[in-house]
Amino acid sequence: MNIALIGCGGVGKAFIKLLQEKEGPLMNQGLNISLKYVIGSKGGIYNPQGIDKEDILNFMASEKDITKYPKGGAHKLSIDDIIDNKDVDMLIELTPTDKETGEPGMTHITKALDNGINVVTGNKGPIMLAYRKLKAIAKANGAQLAIGCTTGGALPSINAGIMDLAGSRILSIEGVLNGTTNFIIQEMETKGIGYEEALRTAQNIGIAEADPSLDVEGWDTAMKMLILVNVLMEEDKTLKDIKVSGITAMTQEDIKKAATDGKKLKLIGKAVKNEEGLEMCVSLEEISPDHPLYGVDGKNKGVRYVSDALGDLTIIGGASGTRAAAASILRDVINIYRGYRFV
Amino acid sequence: MNIALIGCGGVGKAFIKLLQEKEGPLMNQGLNISLKYVIGSKGGIYNPQGIDKEDILNFMASEKDITKYPKGGAHKLSIDDIIDNKDVDMLIELTPTDKETGEPGMTHITKALDNGINVVTGNKGPIMLAYRKLKAIAKANGAQLAIGCTTGGALPSINAGIMDLAGSRILSIEGVLNGTTNFIIQEMETKGIGYEEALRTAQNIGIAEADPSLDVEGWDTAMKMLILVNVLMEEDKTLKDIKVSGITAMTQEDIKKAATDGKKLKLIGKAVKNEEGLEMCVSLEEISPDHPLYGVDGKNKGVRYVSDALGDLTIIGGASGTRAAAASILRDVINIYRGYRFV
Repeated sequence: MNIALIGCGGVGKAFIKLLQEKEGPLMNQGLNISLKYVIGSKGGIYNPQGIDKEDILNFMASEKDITKYPKGGAHKLSIDDIIDNKDVDMLIELTPTDKETGEPGMTHITKALDNGINVVTGNKGPIMLAYRKLKAIAKANGAQLAIGCTTGGALPSINAGIMDLAGSRILSIEGVLNGTTNFIIQEMETKGIGYEEALRTAQNIGIAEADPSLDVEGWDTAMKMLILVNVLMEEDKTLKDIKVSGITAMTQEDIKKAATDGKKLKLIGKAVKNEEGLEMCVSLEEISPDHPLYGVDGKNKGVRYVSDALGDLTIIGGASGTRAAAASILRDVINIYRGYRFV
Repeated sequence: MNIALIGCGGVGKAFIKLLQEKEGPLMNQGLNISLKYVIGSKGGIYNPQGIDKEDILNFMASEKDITKYPKGGAHKLSIDDIIDNKDVDMLIELTPTDKETGEPGMTHITKALDNGINVVTGNKGPIMLAYRKLKAIAKANGAQLAIGCTTGGALPSINAGIMDLAGSRILSIEGVLNGTTNFIIQEMETKGIGYEEALRTAQNIGIAEADPSLDVEGWDTAMKMLILVNVLMEEDKTLKDIKVSGITAMTQEDIKKAATDGKKLKLIGKAVKNEEGLEMCVSLEEISPDHPLYGVDGKNKGVRYVSDALGDLTIIGGASGTRAAAASILRDVINIYRGYRFV
């Protein structure tokens, strides 16, 4: 399989490393992956014989500008070169999420699918804004579009909804889908500290970003819920359809109030089908010990589906970090290799 | 898709009913299923134009001997007719499990795969005794073999190991895989009654069989663990490689002893890779509240995988009963239809 990678931040690098580490086991399955393109924001690297993964990783360890790579580095290398050269089967799209325009991922994914190139992406923007359109382009061109990494990384939330619940109608989705907020809540619970202090701890150890608003105000959870709902319930919702609140106003009093009933606070994304349609929200909820997501603490994530024929299914876990996110990309690559039609 | 069903006990009937109920949604996916054969122990029904599902269900509701069905019922109809007629793409094999010989399922599955017919089965016998051999036959003949129903019905344990952990090496498997014993344990815990009384309750409401030994002595759990290990860890173990004990000696004192540490008792199947190889056992264990399977109570089931790249993954739930088991068969049918290569 010949692939191109666009986006070489943390997950992109971890993906190259994982391809190298898993080369043997993948070959045993008959899957020989040749990485022909690595493209970042300034340009990239092209090697029609396949880029040497170890060599490029060593190079990237000391040099941020990959266009300086001596064996195939070039300015202005872009998705258009991939399309023109017609020499890859799959695009791995890992540029950062833009929740307003979806760019530059939207253009990359659209062009690849339009040309019959399979796409595996971890970029929430284009998927949340235009999944239905992208799926139609994929279908029309006989290409696959796999998005497992967009809704919790290693947690197989989308995959479980598609594959493990195949044939069942999903009636409701509930999820603890944001590791950063879940970690902050746990810090507040276990250390008795306030929100601001817990946030600083999360920022100091690299779990929360300098501007944490996407996470702590609930938008990351909302984007993931939106993707789950549009893909698994075949809806066509937008962020405006979700009532979103976060954890920034959470206090020790809230924790104590929940604890008197034996409950814990969690930032829950929820989508429930009822007679009036689909109700969606993201909010801090008191969760009882008998709820399947009660034990999802710290950086952990979990999702619970209720379905008509297969019943109640709860999935918890999946490691966090760039390696795990990269492994979720590789999982989609393998499942496409094994013939699965996601669209 | 043209299919044959062999085995028309509870799950077989529920499968026909589910095909009828889901006809619309399946057609929307482009999947038009024609049921050409229904075969039981005395013979069966053949209709090359497709058996009328509603009509056959009505007939079966009042008559056990399906060979008396006026439109196509016949004595001696068997797997050999299916092979000779060459008019189905898939065999659904749902005859009862025989853990010594695997028959009659072993013959049915072998003949179908040998003739390039895909097989979806819920029969643990042949899979536990000869998965590697059957997989080789399937591969050699370009057929698929899907076994999701054999390790917990609606709980997507095998599927999760294959699809949701694709690309990761599984290092350990732990499962609460037997709903009957889990129900008996919960009865003892919540009602303070002894093992014998809890077993009688389970038998009275149809959860435990008249001869409950396969369940309560741990063999059902052991068979499921054996399948998980042989399929997901590519081992070639037999039941003799597992230390098996059950719940028959469990007492109120055991429950109280566990409870003093805040723990609960569960019948756990476990397979762990360590330096000396693979260690496998089925035994009653004290489970702490921070263990992901702690909350798997009553008829519920759960499985936990630890993997190298995707981390820790716990899957809990899936309804119990014949309808849910049938839905797990339909799930495999759909995933094969969507192109997935399980073998």
